[in-house]
Formats: sequence, C-alpha cells, structure tokens
Amino acid sequence: MRFVAYLDDHGAEAIGRLDGTHVHRLRGVDRIDRTASPGALLDARAEEDGVPLDTLTLLPVARPGKIFCVGLNYRSHVDETGRELPTYPVLFPKFASSLIGHGAPITLPPESAQVDYEAELAVVIGKAGRRISRDDAFGHVLGYTICNDVTMRDYQYKTHQWMQGKAWDGSTPLGPVLVTADELDPGKLDIALRLNGREMQSSTTDRLIFDVPELIRVTSEFTRLEPGDVILTGTPGGVGYRRDPQVFLTDGDVVEVEIGGIGTLRNTVRAEA
Amino acid sequence: MRFVAYLDDHGAEAIGRLDGTHVHRLRGVDRIDRTASPGALLDARAEEDGVPLDTLTLLPVARPGKIFCVGLNYRSHVDETGRELPTYPVLFPKFASSLIGHGAPITLPPESAQVDYEAELAVVIGKAGRRISRDDAFGHVLGYTICNDVTMRDYQYKTHQWMQGKAWDGSTPLGPVLVTADELDPGKLDIALRLNGREMQSSTTDRLIFDVPELIRVTSEFTRLEPGDVILTGTPGGVGYRRDPQVFLTDGDVVEVEIGGIGTLRNTVRAEA
Repeated sequence: MRFVAYLDDHGAEAIGRLDGTHVHRLRGVDRIDRTASPGALLDARAEEDGVPLDTLTLLPVARPGKIFCVGLNYRSHVDETGRELPTYPVLFPKFASSLIGHGAPITLPPESAQVDYEAELAVVIGKAGRRISRDDAFGHVLGYTICNDVTMRDYQYKTHQWMQGKAWDGSTPLGPVLVTADELDPGKLDIALRLNGREMQSSTTDRLIFDVPELIRVTSEFTRLEPGDVILTGTPGGVGYRRDPQVFLTDGDVVEVEIGGIGTLRNTVRAEA
Repeated sequence: MRFVAYLDDHGAEAIGRLDGTHVHRLRGVDRIDRTASPGALLDARAEEDGVPLDTLTLLPVARPGKIFCVGLNYRSHVDETGRELPTYPVLFPKFASSLIGHGAPITLPPESAQVDYEAELAVVIGKAGRRISRDDAFGHVLGYTICNDVTMRDYQYKTHQWMQGKAWDGSTPLGPVLVTADELDPGKLDIALRLNGREMQSSTTDRLIFDVPELIRVTSEFTRLEPGDVILTGTPGGVGYRRDPQVFLTDGDVVEVEIGGIGTLRNTVRAEA
C-alpha cells in the first residue's frame, strides 16, 4: 500500500491511502509518528471518496522522533570525498523540524552559500525495538520513502562534527509517498537525482555499504527505535560539492529524486525572504 | 525559583517547586517541554502541602525536543585531547531517550567497555526563537541545571562522527533541579565531578570558550529553539578516557557533579541486566 501525509481543508494533518491518482483519507490515523502502529495504519478504514493527489499540499510522510542520517554509504560517494571506506556506519542527526513535504520549497538561508543536494532512500520504522538483529530487522520496517538530504556544506565543515550543516529547519524533503515494506526490496532499487532536468546522481541500492538490516541493527543497539523514526541510508556519488566546478542550489532550481518502485520527490529551491 | 520533575504516587509525571527541603506540586504544569511556557511555569499555583524532596523519584528536569551537546568547550579539555581550539562550537546530539533523573542508575551496556563521565552545565530554553542575537539570548533561557554527559568512548570513536557514543538510552543524568535564570550568572559557576568521592574534574564556567549567549546564537541560527530544548555546554579537563591510566565507570560507582548555585547531581552506576 501507498500512503501520503497532507493538509486537509481545515489545515489539519491527515494520512491518506493513495490508489492510483486519488487519495482516500484514513479514519483514526492522522500522523505516522511514535503513536502510530503499523497495524492501525494498515487496517484503518479509508474514506470511499478520494481526492486527486495533485490538488493536495503534501507534508513530510513521517513525523520522526529521531532521524538517523548515514554518511559515506555508497562507494562512489566515499571515493569522491577522498575518505576511507567506513567499517561502521557514519551516523549524524537531523531534527523533525528539518523536514518538508514534496512540493514545498527548499529554503536557501542567507547564511549559507553552499546548499547541496543528496538523493537517499529513507526507511520508516513501524515497530519499536531495541537491539534488533539483522534477521528481525525487516519486521520493524513500516515502509520506504525518498529523501533529499539537503546539506549546507559551508556549515557542515565548520568543525569535524556535521550537525550544523545537516539540521537546518525546513531544508529536507521527505516523500512524496510511503510504500509499505511488503511491496519493495530495498536492496534492489534504482536511485537518481536530477537538477533542472540534468542527471547529477545515479546508482542502485544494492551498492549500499551498510544495508537496511545492518543500519537497523546498528542504530537499535544504542537506542530504541520507535514508530515514525527515519533512517536516511546515504547518498551515491555526484553531490554538488565534489564536482568540478562545484554546483550549489540556487533560487528557482528544481530538484527531483527518483527511486524505482517509490516515485519522484520534487521540490523547487527558494531563497529565504 | 527551583523546580524538580518527579513521579507522583500514581506514576504520573509532575513538576514541583522546591522550597528548602520540600517539593510543592504545581497545578497545570506536568512537564518542562515544548508545550511549557516560562510564564505558565513561573505563575503556576503550587500546592500548599509539600513532600520531602528525598522521598521522591526524580526525573530528568526537562523533556527536550532537541539536545545540543557542545564538545571541546573548555581549554583544559581541548588540551588533553590534543585537538586544536575550535573556532565554532563542536555540536553533536543526544536524544530525549538518553536522559535519566538524579538518583536513577547510569546503565552500563554490555556492548561498551569504555563508559566515561563528563560534568556539564545545562541550559534549558524557555522561550522559542530562531536567529537569536547574543543580546537577546538570556531572554530565551528558562534556567540552568546539571548534566553528566555520559559517553561510550569506544562507540564515540568508531567513526569521525560521535553520535553513537553519545546517544545511548538511559545513559545521561540531568538534574536534580532547574534554577531559574534570574537566580544565576551562568558565566561564574564552579563545576566539579567526583567519582566515588575523588575529584576528577574541577573548573569554573568563566572558562567556557563559547559562552551561553554564543551557544544560543549559534544553535538558533539553523533551527528554532523551543521550550524544553537543552544545550549541554561542554566539559572541563579530567575525563576518564584522557587519564593515564584511563578510568572508566564500573558497576557500583557513584558519580557526583556539583555546580555552585545549583546543587549536586548524584547517580550510581549499574551494569545492565
């Protein structure tokens, strides 16, 4: 099944099931967050009347308590950074306030001159757990979506810790749709990013250095994963900062991240007023 | 004023005003989190009958949406690590689930053999804001408390990013009491840590490289600070990992962090069952 988060006519958050081009609102489930159980979501009754998807204001498809970003998880990206292959996932955070929906503007803050894109497969947790084994990992996944892990490079590299380059409010698109775990093999997906129609990143998720079960095993070792928590699995080579010449996002740019079996996450870039 | 968070007789969270040795429960305020306004807290009516503080199970005195840890913020600690003085605060996260109260056990997970202490002054935000200037910074502070920024060193250094060494569930004492901003100058406090009665860290907060207004300015540049958010201002020299021989926490240890004008945060260390 496929779900979207959106604003209803009264400005309230809603979750809907996507059937083709139309969204059918769920009854009793308004957010995919730590209060949401996979059972409640999958079993919720959907309204019979649907609304066309393209008329809705979409929201980040999950409202995570915790977001785990993974750096340097494709060899093509490790190579372009000149770093060594990691032997343990490189982990850093974003906040829930970093997230925006499909179609919302990616904000260029006036403080940064180096805002960059990163195409990523996102895992949304459905079932809470601590110290989850690789074998049990898929049982904790609600589904998958797409993220553009937008990064302020000049802030990322202000120190050896990356948080202040990754956690800007309103920077990071997540969506448009959550595809439930039963419909996808997250290890066999095409992933690409286009900037104003030009392909900048292209890879497949079978090239992840640490795969989805391993990322769940590692993060749940030190903290309990909760429903709605999100793991961003890392980006392939081709980021703007590592190009020659470098490429950064500018006002009016259109960025699309496409993942096979999920869809396309599209956002326009806007300089902050 | 001084406030504590605790469990009431029914196991529900409560906030109380501390008057000497007794705690007077507030009406209408149960948590210091993003829903709490400083006005509501300061103006809340307290019950006339008090309960002795030492009979209560204390909780982390704030329930933050975001926790900002600051590394390398005392010269004595920078020197012992052999790193260069930072020109921008070194920022990394903990999660709300990392926190425990005064008196609760610091859990030693079986996975780590290098659990270390760090005495820190903690700032609790009271008034939301983004891009807060140094001049306005103190107007956003609800108050101050004490943190033991417990760190799993073997996990911290698994990669160049520190999150997995800092964000273990149930690792990090915060409390015992929040002292409102009007009662303290956070730039003039003695800070010390004792392990089983032996002093391991001792400094004063006038030695912070980045002071409280600067940390509020820097963090609020990229994300909106909300009530209940916590900034951990960094630890002085003397951590266990940098000693010769190294010192790590072991089952049964008693760790006390004392800050002048606030009090003493005391916890016993327990190996996880």
